[in-house]
Amino acid sequence: MRQSRLFTKTRREAPSDEVAKNAQLLVRAGYIHKEMAGVYDYLPLGLRALNNIIALIREEMNALGGEEVFLSTLQDSEIWKKSGRWDDEAVDIWFKTKLKNGSELGLGNTHEEALTALMKEHIVSYKDLPRYVYQFQNKFRNETRAKSGIMRTREFIMKDLYSFSRDSTEHAAFYEKAAAAYERIFKRAGIGDKTYRTFASGGSFSKYSHEYQAVSAAGEDVIYIDKKRRLAVNKEVYDDPEVYASAGIEKSSLVEAKAIEVGNIFTLGTRFSDALGLSYKDKEGKPTPVFMGSYGIGPGRLMGTIVELMADEKGLVWPESVAPFAYHLVSLGREGDEVSRAADALYSDMRKAGIEVLYDDRDARAGEKFAESDLLGIPKRIVVGKEAAETGVFEVVERATGAVVKTPRAMLTTP
Amino acid sequence: MRQSRLFTKTRREAPSDEVAKNAQLLVRAGYIHKEMAGVYDYLPLGLRALNNIIALIREEMNALGGEEVFLSTLQDSEIWKKSGRWDDEAVDIWFKTKLKNGSELGLGNTHEEALTALMKEHIVSYKDLPRYVYQFQNKFRNETRAKSGIMRTREFIMKDLYSFSRDSTEHAAFYEKAAAAYERIFKRAGIGDKTYRTFASGGSFSKYSHEYQAVSAAGEDVIYIDKKRRLAVNKEVYDDPEVYASAGIEKSSLVEAKAIEVGNIFTLGTRFSDALGLSYKDKEGKPTPVFMGSYGIGPGRLMGTIVELMADEKGLVWPESVAPFAYHLVSLGREGDEVSRAADALYSDMRKAGIEVLYDDRDARAGEKFAESDLLGIPKRIVVGKEAAETGVFEVVERATGAVVKTPRAMLTTP
Repeated sequence: MRQSRLFTKTRREAPSDEVAKNAQLLVRAGYIHKEMAGVYDYLPLGLRALNNIIALIREEMNALGGEEVFLSTLQDSEIWKKSGRWDDEAVDIWFKTKLKNGSELGLGNTHEEALTALMKEHIVSYKDLPRYVYQFQNKFRNETRAKSGIMRTREFIMKDLYSFSRDSTEHAAFYEKAAAAYERIFKRAGIGDKTYRTFASGGSFSKYSHEYQAVSAAGEDVIYIDKKRRLAVNKEVYDDPEVYASAGIEKSSLVEAKAIEVGNIFTLGTRFSDALGLSYKDKEGKPTPVFMGSYGIGPGRLMGTIVELMADEKGLVWPESVAPFAYHLVSLGREGDEVSRAADALYSDMRKAGIEVLYDDRDARAGEKFAESDLLGIPKRIVVGKEAAETGVFEVVERATGAVVKTPRAMLTTP
Repeated sequence: MRQSRLFTKTRREAPSDEVAKNAQLLVRAGYIHKEMAGVYDYLPLGLRALNNIIALIREEMNALGGEEVFLSTLQDSEIWKKSGRWDDEAVDIWFKTKLKNGSELGLGNTHEEALTALMKEHIVSYKDLPRYVYQFQNKFRNETRAKSGIMRTREFIMKDLYSFSRDSTEHAAFYEKAAAAYERIFKRAGIGDKTYRTFASGGSFSKYSHEYQAVSAAGEDVIYIDKKRRLAVNKEVYDDPEVYASAGIEKSSLVEAKAIEVGNIFTLGTRFSDALGLSYKDKEGKPTPVFMGSYGIGPGRLMGTIVELMADEKGLVWPESVAPFAYHLVSLGREGDEVSRAADALYSDMRKAGIEVLYDDRDARAGEKFAESDLLGIPKRIVVGKEAAETGVFEVVERATGAVVKTPRAMLTTP
């Protein structure tokens, strides 16, 4: 798209009310807007990056056999009372509201209850299992503090997948497949080398759960890493001797690090199917509770984590898989001159080839344009100056490394 | 996709708690699930149809020069107090909630305030205008009654576009372009011939607004139609003599009808830019309030309207543009037999050709499969029986008309 048509403006200074690096840079670059503490809007560039993350996760969920749904935010108290999670004492991050008739509703902070209740209408026999159902849907959590930018917010889109299996064996096989999909997601999103499968508490559901923790000074968690085996242990289970037997690692070989939780996978067992009465008839016709798991990733938090891990002192740095555009075409011409005509023509040819390009077609100083281009963080910058316009050979600058490659025009207009 | 892998089941009977035809059929067909009165979940087939509607609208909004964003549900009271729309007396469908510190938040029922406040950071001079910004985003409205299925719900995705223009002239030109885009949307969604541009009250913003009203006995509105000129007048302005001058129609030529409001476009003028201080510097440097408009379509309501207008006694009927799949491939074979192998091979070749096909690969009686296929409403059904498997010529049944066309295999596997 033409940058002259992009409504967002960048800022030189970080907003004074943001302490997290991800929010400072994303606000400066016009990717997001802060509505209030812990609540952000996604602006055109930010929404493109977010949607790229969503598309990448969706591919992996579909490859797992996931079926996509979209559940409601408004939650009836009834099903949550059945699972014992309605009271504010049980779940301390509820946002609640009221219908005109006075009955209380909740804003969904997760969807185990709603989906378990829904599946009762669709699971009858063992032939209806296993099933994997997921969504990308807004969650609401009444966090007391919100200082981590888009990494911990009061409202955020979450990918939550729920698995419905016949028994713990069938569940365990899927759980490992889901774990492998999670590893692919973080690798594809450019943070695979810094992200560790981490043993964590299973809460009230099972002995352990697994988190995916990306090592970063901005993290709120402390983990202990076995780099060689690419496994880690969350501080919350660090003193539990059993975890080392389960993980097959030695406590003495671990290294402490701060980390950001970018995903988690849980064995729920029959916790919710028992509470809400989700059972199937086995081959002998015997009613049996469905064995469940849940698998979460917050695309917004993942986007914030990528910023924390990859951005540099000049601004954002996006991996190609997430970047709002593959190329940033920066014209150094003035409206109507030869350089500007060459840039226009290159933009037009790149678009025809289906290449995603942001075209800085504005009249502004070169230094200003380059600084802004660095801030936006698009992976490759093509500079169109007088020489390039004349020779048809363009300087392509890699944002992450600063490496410059002289590239002939034909290579830039080939899909 | 293989129907054996689809988690949803269909029902023979309409749920007793639904009075609206759209909800009865969509629940029976497994497209949606009722969470509570006025709150629905979208299941895989329903979400596919909804996403097709969203994609169609998005194309038209992008063609208008719209830039997509995603704003928050949680709303700070401050901006709404400035516009005078925070109090429940001013807006009687608020859902409100509270932060831990006790401050009240609203759940967005529309986004004029939020977007106007946001644009203050990005609009400075006349060079920054016009701008067109839109989103697909969940709205929350505390409706007293909710009896129209997915056509009037307490929580729903809305496409809301807001225009920011220099003055009323620039605005008026865009308003007509947006009106033309709306007409294309309803035409592409298969309800163009029943949908009328309708003069309605402009509320507190301007003399008139325009609604798009689809004629249906299920409608909650009463309109008066000039069929020849394809215009209508909402009952609320029927007795206003000025409307006939504006519309260029004769009151005496109008025909009364019930109708469903499927879209609306509003001239907002400077109502919100004045209240929130959104101004730009004109060519002389003089601060001038931005002239605004808003343009809404609820994709879910549009989906419900399509059901109301097109479904028949056998079930749903989708236009191709909205249908979750283009083809319903129904195998009459049994697992492993010749017919089932022919159906498998056809399914595989159609998928390779990129054709969207739901494949009923289940062992079930033909009559049951056909009844279910009618209920699902996919535009074209391909029947694979013994003769088709042998000859390679398949019966393709058009859902809307029942017309049967003998079609050679090669025609079905060509994109």
